[in-house]
Amino acid sequence: MFDVFKRPAARLEVPRLKPRRTPDASLRVNLAELTPEPVSYLGQAAYIQLAAFEALARALMLAPSVGAKEALGPASGSALEKHQRLVVELRKLVDDPAVIMASFAPAIDEYAAVIRGADWYESLASVYLTAGILDDFFILLSAGIDGDAGQKAARIIEADSGRHVIETLLADAIAEDATMGSRLALWGRRLVGDTLLLARSAIHHSGNVRTDEQRIEPVFTELIAKHSRRMDGLGLTA
Amino acid sequence: MFDVFKRPAARLEVPRLKPRRTPDASLRVNLAELTPEPVSYLGQAAYIQLAAFEALARALMLAPSVGAKEALGPASGSALEKHQRLVVELRKLVDDPAVIMASFAPAIDEYAAVIRGADWYESLASVYLTAGILDDFFILLSAGIDGDAGQKAARIIEADSGRHVIETLLADAIAEDATMGSRLALWGRRLVGDTLLLARSAIHHSGNVRTDEQRIEPVFTELIAKHSRRMDGLGLTA
Repeated sequence: MFDVFKRPAARLEVPRLKPRRTPDASLRVNLAELTPEPVSYLGQAAYIQLAAFEALARALMLAPSVGAKEALGPASGSALEKHQRLVVELRKLVDDPAVIMASFAPAIDEYAAVIRGADWYESLASVYLTAGILDDFFILLSAGIDGDAGQKAARIIEADSGRHVIETLLADAIAEDATMGSRLALWGRRLVGDTLLLARSAIHHSGNVRTDEQRIEPVFTELIAKHSRRMDGLGLTA
Repeated sequence: MFDVFKRPAARLEVPRLKPRRTPDASLRVNLAELTPEPVSYLGQAAYIQLAAFEALARALMLAPSVGAKEALGPASGSALEKHQRLVVELRKLVDDPAVIMASFAPAIDEYAAVIRGADWYESLASVYLTAGILDDFFILLSAGIDGDAGQKAARIIEADSGRHVIETLLADAIAEDATMGSRLALWGRRLVGDTLLLARSAIHHSGNVRTDEQRIEPVFTELIAKHSRRMDGLGLTA
């Protein structure tokens, strides 16, 4: 079985040099096959935004200065608002969105604990990089949702995340501490495996492992390529 | 020197039976004398909303169910938004609001640690009761601010806090656990002293201790009366 987590790190770097583009026709077909039911999709997307909110609010609380707290306020507010807007969409389909989200909460909470990081800087890098991957993933998946729920969800997730300030907060720390860059680069590479594992758990499986993996591979290649660009943006070697 | 913290608890209950009303003329005069400069006022009011956001976000993170997380989302968002709107007002008066807030941060952070509570229920009671007292206090003080900054701040602080859900969350817990009510009642009474101490640190002192205390006393009587009503609303003996 294809297992992205056992690939050597070097393999993950390859897509970094590919030009970025919107999903092509064959990728769209793959995504349509991989996309879960709208209720599952929205429940997971909504709870993942809530997890991002919690990570950002925690980073705000632990920030070393009032200025850094202020910088993280809009990102926290944006993740909470995206969560709430996705819950509004979910409530159009089910009576109690919390029940749907609760079924995904243990896995996402466990993931959130794994990616929390050892200190404030690792936590910041985590939320910047992992929320980036997961937003990309749920935006890609949205193309496979029937009706307008997918398009609405994509518009919600695509709205400004406010996380760009993390680039500045981390750049300052990397400039001041020579070991920070290599530590965060290592951490950023480690995050990919757990994040793609969470993404993998969100997709619809046909039961045909070979077909599923053939469909998943180009999606993950796309996600890894975009992750590498975010690593570059932070000045970290992907 | 008048010291509200050394009064017996029974004294604090008296104003509970007084009818509620808007500040009368003599209270308005007192407030005008007690009110700090607009920059100090807005800096403290803004940072206190940020502290409420942090307390609410922490309660959301530690909530025992997804339903309880959902219930606390709007309150978290409201406190963050009020903070951000007060910072906008502060930025009209100073270049760097974070510098102003940073001067008040140590005292407010220390206060936030003291009122955090031993578990989720005490934390919920804390943020409900203390944010209630502090919102009342800053709304009262706003009447003494020159120009429109005070009126704007009052409108921001008065907007729906979303904290009413805490009444339900605590009522459920009190109904299920016979000792919870008496424990939270004790905790709710304890919070008053530290909160009024923080409020006291926010006011303008004339240098005449006797005059200042005469002005502060009716304000604190008003705050304690409203606190007692919130305790009643939670089903706790004030």
